[in-house]
Formats: sequence, C-alpha cells, structure tokens
Amino acid sequence: MARIVMKFGGTSVANLDRIRRVAALVARQHAQGNEVAVVVSAMSGETNRLVGFVDDISDDSRLGGAIDDEYDAIVASGEQVTSGLLSIALRRQGVNARSWQGWQIPLQTDGTHASARIKDIETLAFNQSLKDGIVGVVAGFQGISPLGRVSTLGRGGSDTSAVALAVALKADRCDIYTDVDGVYTTDPRIVPEARRLNRIAFEEMLELASQGAKVLQTRSVELAMNNNLPIRVLTSFRGVDEPNPGTLVCSEETIMEERVVSGVAFSRDEAQISLLRLSDVPGVVARVCGVMADANISVDMIVQGTSRREDSANLVFTIGRRDLEKTLSALEENKGKIGFDGLLFNDKVSKVSVVGIGMRSHAGVAHTMFSALAERNINIEVIATSEIKISVLIDSDMTELAVRALNGAFDLGAK
Amino acid sequence: MARIVMKFGGTSVANLDRIRRVAALVARQHAQGNEVAVVVSAMSGETNRLVGFVDDISDDSRLGGAIDDEYDAIVASGEQVTSGLLSIALRRQGVNARSWQGWQIPLQTDGTHASARIKDIETLAFNQSLKDGIVGVVAGFQGISPLGRVSTLGRGGSDTSAVALAVALKADRCDIYTDVDGVYTTDPRIVPEARRLNRIAFEEMLELASQGAKVLQTRSVELAMNNNLPIRVLTSFRGVDEPNPGTLVCSEETIMEERVVSGVAFSRDEAQISLLRLSDVPGVVARVCGVMADANISVDMIVQGTSRREDSANLVFTIGRRDLEKTLSALEENKGKIGFDGLLFNDKVSKVSVVGIGMRSHAGVAHTMFSALAERNINIEVIATSEIKISVLIDSDMTELAVRALNGAFDLGAK
Repeated sequence: MARIVMKFGGTSVANLDRIRRVAALVARQHAQGNEVAVVVSAMSGETNRLVGFVDDISDDSRLGGAIDDEYDAIVASGEQVTSGLLSIALRRQGVNARSWQGWQIPLQTDGTHASARIKDIETLAFNQSLKDGIVGVVAGFQGISPLGRVSTLGRGGSDTSAVALAVALKADRCDIYTDVDGVYTTDPRIVPEARRLNRIAFEEMLELASQGAKVLQTRSVELAMNNNLPIRVLTSFRGVDEPNPGTLVCSEETIMEERVVSGVAFSRDEAQISLLRLSDVPGVVARVCGVMADANISVDMIVQGTSRREDSANLVFTIGRRDLEKTLSALEENKGKIGFDGLLFNDKVSKVSVVGIGMRSHAGVAHTMFSALAERNINIEVIATSEIKISVLIDSDMTELAVRALNGAFDLGAK
Repeated sequence: MARIVMKFGGTSVANLDRIRRVAALVARQHAQGNEVAVVVSAMSGETNRLVGFVDDISDDSRLGGAIDDEYDAIVASGEQVTSGLLSIALRRQGVNARSWQGWQIPLQTDGTHASARIKDIETLAFNQSLKDGIVGVVAGFQGISPLGRVSTLGRGGSDTSAVALAVALKADRCDIYTDVDGVYTTDPRIVPEARRLNRIAFEEMLELASQGAKVLQTRSVELAMNNNLPIRVLTSFRGVDEPNPGTLVCSEETIMEERVVSGVAFSRDEAQISLLRLSDVPGVVARVCGVMADANISVDMIVQGTSRREDSANLVFTIGRRDLEKTLSALEENKGKIGFDGLLFNDKVSKVSVVGIGMRSHAGVAHTMFSALAERNINIEVIATSEIKISVLIDSDMTELAVRALNGAFDLGAK
C-alpha cells in the first residue's frame, strides 16, 4: 500500500469521456489498496473562456491588477467544476470520492492574487478522509488568501498544487499525467530518434524545463527537489492495462545509469543585444542589469569581451524576443547613464543547451559539443556554462541541425 | 440613506453587456448614498450547461441523489463567476465592490444538498464591508453545509438568498430585478389590457405565484411576509434614468387602495380524477391521500359528493398533469385498500382562480365570478375556496375566455 497523488492537466480532462478515462486510471490505483489524492486542472479551454470574460469586462486593462482578487474568484471556478465531475465519475465506477476546493482543505497562500505562493496546507481533515478510503479530488491551481478570498497560483499552478499536496501528505510519489508519455532527450518532433528517459535528476529537469522542454512547471520541480519527492511524468492517453512507465524525476542518487548528458534543450524565442564601445567597463554590467530590472526584463546569457580598439569594450547579452522593443527603448533612454556608444541587435538567434549531471565529473563534454557544431559549420555567437549545462547561442536557421547533431554526438537516440 | 438588497436573475446578467447595465443600476443606488448588497444568479444558460455535465457523467441517474453534494459544488460555480464579473464591472465604473461566495459570508444551510434551507446568515464581516462603502456582490442560490461543503437552495433559490440576506442585514427593502416590469392582474399575453399592480399583499402574491404567475419564488415571499420585508419587483431592462416603479409586495396594512380582487391566475397543467361508487365514505379521503403521499404525488382540489345511487359516493380531486400516469397506477394497485369501483379521469382541465385580500370582508365575489362564467357558458367541474381565493376547474379550451371574463368582471383592466 502506498499513498499517491495523481495530477491530471487540462487536456486529460478536456471532456466528459476523458474524465471517465481518468476515473478508470484513479480507480485502478485505489483498487490496488493505495490511498489516492487527485489534483485536476480545468477542462481545457475553460480557463481561456473565463479569462476572456475578465478581459472583456475590464476592457483588457485588468485595471492594473486592481481586480486580481475577482479574477481569481472567477477563474478558479474551472477547477472546481472538474473536481466535482471527476468525483461523480468515480462514484459512478463504485469508488468513494469527494471534491475539495482550495478553501476547503484549506490550502493557505500568501495574499498575492493571480500568482499566489503556497504558505501552508492543513492536512488533518484531508488525511482522515484518505485513511477512510475516500479518494480526495482536489481543485488544482487555487487556494485561500490570508483574508479568506480565493487565490490562484498562476498558470501551470496545478503541478505546484499537486507536488505541494504530496509533500504535505507525505505521499510516496506524485504522478503527473499529461499529454506526452514522459521526458525525452530532446524534442521528438525535431529528432525522431529522441529517446524517452526512464529517470532524470531534479536538477536536469529544471535546466530542461526552463528551456522549452516544458513538461513540468519549474516551481513544482524545485518544490519536489527540496523535499526529495519523486515525480513520475506519464501520459493519460493510454488505457488502464497498457504499459505506461513514463519518466521518474528524482534525486541524483536514485539514478543508476551512468550518463554524462541527459538531454538537449533549445529555445527559439531569443534575441541578442550587443552594446559597443562602453566607456567604463567596471560596473557596467550592474548598470545594464539595473536598467533591465527597472523595465521588468529578464536578462539571460551575459558575455563581456574586449573589442579591437583598446580603450573600449563590448557587452553582449540575451533577452526573450518578446521583450526586444521594450529593451531597445530602455537602453536608448539610459544611454548616457550606462555609457555606451553603439548598439546592435539580432532577433534571429536560438539557444541550444546540453544538460546532464554527469558533466560535473566528466571532462570533454564541451569539446564534444563544440566539435559536433563545428563539423556542421554552425557558428557560436555566445557561450554560457553552468555546472550541469552548456548553452550556445546560434543562428536560428541552424536550430534543428544543431539539435540533431548534439543528440547524435551524445548518443541520445533510440538504441 | 437606506440599506438596499438588489437581486438580478439569469436573464438580467445573461452576457457581459447586460452585466455592465446592471452595474450602472447598482452604481446609481450607491451614488445616492445607500448601502448596497447585490445578489446575482448565474448567466442564463450557464446553470443548464453545468447541470448537463452532471447528468451526462452520472448517466442521467444522478445516482439516486448520492451525488447531490458534487452537483452543488459544480452548479454553484455559475453564480461565483457572475458575482466576480459584476464586481469588476462596478470597479470599472469607479464603485468599490467585492464578491462574496456563500461560504465566505457564511450563509449557513442545513445538510440537504441540491435543495438546502437557509439556517443562519453571519453578517458581522459583511455588515462592516457595507458600512465601509463597499458594494457586496453575493453569489445567489448557494451556501455552506454543516460539513463545510457547498450547498445550493434549489432552482429559483437566488430570490430566497436575496430576501434572507435582506432580513439578516435589516435592509430597508429588497429589489428583485427580473425580465418583467412588475406583477400583473393576469397574464398580459392572454389579456392585453391586464394592469400592472402598484402594490400587492404578501398573501395575494403567494396565491398568485403558486399558480402560474411565476414572478417570485414562493419561499422568498413567505420569508418576506414572516419578516414584514417589502419586496419590489421591477425590470432590469430599462435604462438608469427611465421610470421603473415595478410592484411593491408588502403587508396588507401598507396597501391603501380598496380592492376586492387583485388578480386572476390560471394553470393549464391539471388533471381531474373521479373515484366512483366508494364503498366506505368515512376515512376514504385519508386513504386516498395516504396512497398519493406514498407515491409522492401532490393532491390539490378535493370534493366529496353523493352519486345518484344512494348507497355509494364519489370523490373528485385534481393533481398535476405530469403525475397522471403515476396516479393511475397507484390507484389501480390500491383499489381494494381504498375501496372504489370505478375511475374516470380528465386531463383537459384548467384551474382558474381569483385572488384578493378584500374578499374577506366583501360578500358577492363568488356570485360575480360564477355569473361571469355562466354568461359565457363555461361549465365548472370543481370549486375550491380559501379565505382570499376562489378557484374553479374548467375545460382547458375555455381558459382564455374565462380569464378575460373574470378580468373584465372585476375591473382589472387598464383604466
């Protein structure tokens, strides 16, 4: 007997037939003698419908955030409906079940509406209900604020609800059901021979997730890592009796296979900025980052280099492409303050990264990576490294070529 | 300055444009210095959509009521969305407002899901919020059960929410906005010269409402009567500056006009049953009512008469037409127990009633009524009387003729 939290996203509960299939998956776990809590998202499309109402009635302004409390009360209703429907579907299949809204558990959050953070989960009543053999079906994505209002955790928050609940309930594992059957070495749409990983370390998952391999919400992985709670990612689109091993996201120690690189991630949504002829190099990075932070823009890769003229230097950094216009005007406005003389930008760049905890102890990863790219004549604009990741910025047109080359170089294809 | 509860039904908040118009009506009351609480229904069609989900996932059985708790959790979300949207619309118009769900007030109900009764309304926090000048927008139709689950009051329950809230808040009045501009002497679709009543007594409203003039839910009128809270019925489909007097439903003492009859009500959904040659008259009515009660069928008009044969008697009564088949089989099954020898039924009958508190002190109402019907050769099958109502059962084809005749006889047309 184990205690399991199962989470189903919007596509898994998109309509009543899918909700019935989800009920069958839950019923199977329950029939095996497990204590089961389920966390559900809104039926897909429902959150967008509700957000559309809010945007329309607030004239798209959302009144500068001054209606976030009501936004939460409205949007949280989507998960409420799904949790009720799944409870009925379970009872229809003979399984004792009941729905729980955020305020009923209660799942306490801070007072930041529309992107609240979980503060505490009271488990007394919920625990007893599980022990009584009742499946607890929790409306994900929502909680209750210190003032007793409904709060939501922001988009993707149901993953975080599920992991936080699993931690609070001391669950044995958290199974995240989604529309893919696990975590892949790279995007199978680009590299058909990409391989599903049986296991991946939390740290690797974080580096992959923040880069486009968007299977799990970053906050949920961090939470699982901090509490050493294994997460299994698997698909809800297989029958109860079909094999569905998924990918286990777990601590490094639990991973037995020797592997230097686990995956190749990429993001096309990048833009590169070069500031030329900086007058005063010491402190310039801090000034640039200050200007960007004031404009609420995240800066990613940063490289300082010396230009050919000896008395000046260049600074190169990347931002999200959607922030390009905002960035350019912020830099122009602060040209004097920062102290630069010229500006170039390139919005046709991609970031490609190899990720793997084995890198720490294995030399030669960088050499393998750069050789593979050089063989295909792919120019590298910027390089950034962390303990378990090497990222390069390249011409966007080269993205697929680079991803395939790296997948081959690190032997990440199907065996 | 007054304290007002305003209630808006589903057609009044059917879409975002109508919600904006409702916000304008509320803003006007607030601008006049009043403390305003608003009770809203779900956007029309929304409750049906949600109930459709429930029926589908429970295979139309609703599992014999064993899912009523989840039905409530699902269906209550409709009002939750409207209350949030109206709060946003009010803020958009510069009015401080916030939504309240049943559990937030809290509005305590009993544990009968899907048709709960209100037990208590805690007003401490809500009161303070009103005093702070914040419009309280309440999700109607819902409360919280003794076990902390969401409960609903059953269809039409938003009227009851509004009146109960008005009583608990010691409001000066409760304004029920709907899609008609008041209560009429009879159905204007049948009698074009039917007149809007300026005032009507609670008792008269109860007799009219239970009969087809379905403007207000019966329970809400009873509650208002027991607490002597005036209700104003008016339309939400007029502009803020257009006259909109509506109809005041109030105590008899408040009504100044001398009026013997206030309205003519009718119902076409009747069926008449005649039991022939009853063997044992004493106790037979009790036995018939017992059989009907066991089958969960309401019996309305009951008349005992003697037939031409001296040793036996007839019993005539009416039921709702939808219960006819159930009634016939219940009676056949219990033929021996009841002791009758023949059965006739007629499902082409209507009930027409005149209602008025003035009847108590005025003789001659019955005479005027029966003369008016006789003049038009309308046969009366059954007569039933109460203190403030006389009802007759007639051939369905004669319904409109009878209603028009009575409207004329009691001078209820437009002046």
